[in-house]
Amino acid sequence: MIELNGRGYRKPELPTVVICVDGFDPAYVERGIADGILPTIAGFARDGWLGTAEAAMPTFTNPNNVSIVTGAPPAVHGIAGNYYLDRETGREIMITDDRLMRSATILGLMSQAGVKVAAVTAKDKLRRMLGHGLDGVCFSSECAATEIEAMVGRTRPDMYSADLSLFALDAGLRLFASGAAELLYLSLSDFIQHGHAPGEAAADSFHRGLDERVARFVEMGAVVALTADHGMNDKPQVIFLEDELSAWFGLGAARVICPITDPFVRHHGALGSFVRVYARVDHDIPAMMAATMALPGVAGVYDRATAAKRFELPYDLEADFVVLGDAATAIGAAGTEHDLSGLAGHLLRSHGGEGEQLVPFMLSRPLSGEYRLRAQTRRLRNFDIFDYALYGAV
Amino acid sequence: MIELNGRGYRKPELPTVVICVDGFDPAYVERGIADGILPTIAGFARDGWLGTAEAAMPTFTNPNNVSIVTGAPPAVHGIAGNYYLDRETGREIMITDDRLMRSATILGLMSQAGVKVAAVTAKDKLRRMLGHGLDGVCFSSECAATEIEAMVGRTRPDMYSADLSLFALDAGLRLFASGAAELLYLSLSDFIQHGHAPGEAAADSFHRGLDERVARFVEMGAVVALTADHGMNDKPQVIFLEDELSAWFGLGAARVICPITDPFVRHHGALGSFVRVYARVDHDIPAMMAATMALPGVAGVYDRATAAKRFELPYDLEADFVVLGDAATAIGAAGTEHDLSGLAGHLLRSHGGEGEQLVPFMLSRPLSGEYRLRAQTRRLRNFDIFDYALYGAV
Repeated sequence: MIELNGRGYRKPELPTVVICVDGFDPAYVERGIADGILPTIAGFARDGWLGTAEAAMPTFTNPNNVSIVTGAPPAVHGIAGNYYLDRETGREIMITDDRLMRSATILGLMSQAGVKVAAVTAKDKLRRMLGHGLDGVCFSSECAATEIEAMVGRTRPDMYSADLSLFALDAGLRLFASGAAELLYLSLSDFIQHGHAPGEAAADSFHRGLDERVARFVEMGAVVALTADHGMNDKPQVIFLEDELSAWFGLGAARVICPITDPFVRHHGALGSFVRVYARVDHDIPAMMAATMALPGVAGVYDRATAAKRFELPYDLEADFVVLGDAATAIGAAGTEHDLSGLAGHLLRSHGGEGEQLVPFMLSRPLSGEYRLRAQTRRLRNFDIFDYALYGAV
Repeated sequence: MIELNGRGYRKPELPTVVICVDGFDPAYVERGIADGILPTIAGFARDGWLGTAEAAMPTFTNPNNVSIVTGAPPAVHGIAGNYYLDRETGREIMITDDRLMRSATILGLMSQAGVKVAAVTAKDKLRRMLGHGLDGVCFSSECAATEIEAMVGRTRPDMYSADLSLFALDAGLRLFASGAAELLYLSLSDFIQHGHAPGEAAADSFHRGLDERVARFVEMGAVVALTADHGMNDKPQVIFLEDELSAWFGLGAARVICPITDPFVRHHGALGSFVRVYARVDHDIPAMMAATMALPGVAGVYDRATAAKRFELPYDLEADFVVLGDAATAIGAAGTEHDLSGLAGHLLRSHGGEGEQLVPFMLSRPLSGEYRLRAQTRRLRNFDIFDYALYGAV
C-alpha cells in the first residue's frame, strides 16, 4: 500500500496496465464502437466499464500525464503546460524534464515499494517526468535504444507517425510478456488525432491497431484501464492574440505564451485553445482582458487568481491572465511564430480548452459496487484512473 | 412523431413518466443507494441506466423545467430564471406564467397529436409554463382543487412540506392507473433538499417515499425516467453583492437580481449561486466586474455577451454581467432583502451555479445500443431526458 496526495493505492493484485491514449476524444470511441473498429473496447462497454471523465486544465499532454501519474491536479504537481515563461528571468522554457515537479508519482512510489514498474511513452519529452523517482524501466519510442528495438523487433519509428504510439504499445506488450512489469503505464502520441477526425481512414486504422494491442493485454490476464490526456476538435478559426494586443496596446505590450508548444509541433503549429498572457505593465491588464473577451471565438478570460483557482493550477506559475478558445477556435501568439505548413492541407485540429476536457475512462473488468456507484453519480477525472485500475476492478 | 427544436420524438409506445426531482443532487443517489434508501433506483442502476447529466445554467427550477419539456437550453425557450428585471421598464418581475416562453413543449405537441398527456407540479409557479399549449391535464399540488384532493385521497399539503412532492407523485399514480395519462411529467419541490443533506433522516424519509412511488410506476408497466433541475450544496458563505457594489461605487450604482427568487423562498432566503447585475452607468461595468471577481467565493464573472454564449442564455434578457458563486458560496443582493429566519437554524443549502450542474439521469429500462453508447461517450444534458425516455429505452 502506498499513499500519495491524499489517496491510498494498493499494490497490483493482477498485472495492471494504464494507457493514456493521447488525444483520444470520446467521439473516436463512439464512432469506433459503432463502426466495429474497436471490438475489444466495445467489450469493455459491455462487461467492464466505459464512461467519460474530465481531463485537467489546460487540456494539454504534460499537465494531464503528470496528473494521471500523481492522481492530482496541476496545482499539486506543478506541471501546468508544455511550455512556460519564467517570471523571474523572463525566459521562455520548454518543459522536458521533472525539475518543476512538486509531487512524487504513483509509479515511483510503487517501484520503491518493490513493484516491478515500467513506463513507456511515445514522445521522449514525457520520459523524464514519467520517470520521476521511478526505479524501473522507462523509455520512449522516439529515442528507443538498440536493445529496445531488438525487443520490439523493429527500428524506432519516425516521430511523426502512427507507429510512434503502436511501438510504445508493442514495447509494453513485450515487457509484460517477459514479466518485466507488473504495473505498466503507456502514454501515446496524438499525431493521428491532430490530423484525422473520427471515421477517417487513418484514424480508423490507428485505433484498430490500438484495440488489437489492448486485446492482447487482456488475453495475457491484465487489468487494462484507458483514458486520455485531452479530447480533440476541429479548430477552423485562429486568433493571433499577441498581434491583436499589439494593435490595441502597442507593440510588445503583452507576451502570449502557448503552453501547447513542444518539440513536436508540426501537426498543430503550436496552436491550441488555452494561452497565457503576460502584460508589460500591470495597469493594462483589465483593459486587455476586456478587449480579449470581446473577440469572437474567445470562450473565457480569467485573471491570474481566478484561473489558478478555477482550473486548479499553481498560482506562482500562472500568467497575468489566461484566455480560452471555444471548441472551434485556436489561439496563438503572433502569426509569424506559428508555422502551419506542417498541416499539409489538413484542417487544424487541436485542444487545450474546456471543449476538449471530456475524455474516455474505461476498464476491462467490472467495477466493484462502490466504484461503479461512484462512477454513476460523480464527475470522474482522468487522474482517477490509477485508483480505479488498482482498487475499482473486481 | 412530433418535432421540436431540431429533435424528433415518437409517441410513447408504453406509458411513460418523466420525473424532475427538484434539487436531487447526485450525492443523494450515491448515498441513498449505498444505504438502501433507494432500492428501486438501485435496480435502475443494475438493469436500466443510471448516470449523470448537466443541467442548464443557471441551475434554477424554472429554466431547467422548461428546458426539460422543450429539449433545449434557455437561449431557445426564453426562460432564464424565476425572477428578472425588465430592461425596458426597469420593473422586477416574477415569472409565474408562460408569457416569456419562446418555444412549444413536447407535452403540448404530444397532446395536440392525440397523446393523453398530464403534467403535475408540486409548486403552482411552474404550472402555467408546463401547461403551455397543453391540451390535457395540468395542475399543482400547491393549488390542487377539491376533485384532485378526492382523487389523491387527502387534502392538498402545506407548501413547505415534503408532502407537496409526494402528493404530486401520488396524483400522477392515480392519473396513470385510471388511464388518464400515457405521457406524464411530474415536477417536484426541493423543500427537503434545501434543508437536509444526504444521510439526514428527513432526506432519507423523503427519498424513500420517492423510491416507493417510482416502484409503483414500474409495477404499472411504465417506462420511468428521472432527472433533476439542479443539484444542491451547503453554502456556508454568503456575499451580499449589492452592498459590496454600493460600498465601492456608491449607493444605487448597481442593482443585483437574484433569479432564484420565487413565491416560495423560506427554505433558501432567495440566496443562490448565480446573480445578474445591472449597472446604473455602463462606464462602471468593467471596474465592477473586476472588483467582483476579486471577492473570495466568486467562481466567475461574465459580461452580458459572454454569459449568454457560454451558458446558452437569451442575450436580450441578459444583465450587464452575471456573477457565479462557488459550490460553498451563495450570492445575494442587499443584506436587508434576504430573510434567513426561515432557515430555522439549518445551514443554508442552495444552488444556481456550476457546482450544482451535475444531476442524475436514469431510466427504468435498458437503453438501446445507440443511446447507451451515446450516454457512455457524451456529456448528457438533463433536457435529453424525453428523448431518452421515448426513444432510448428498449
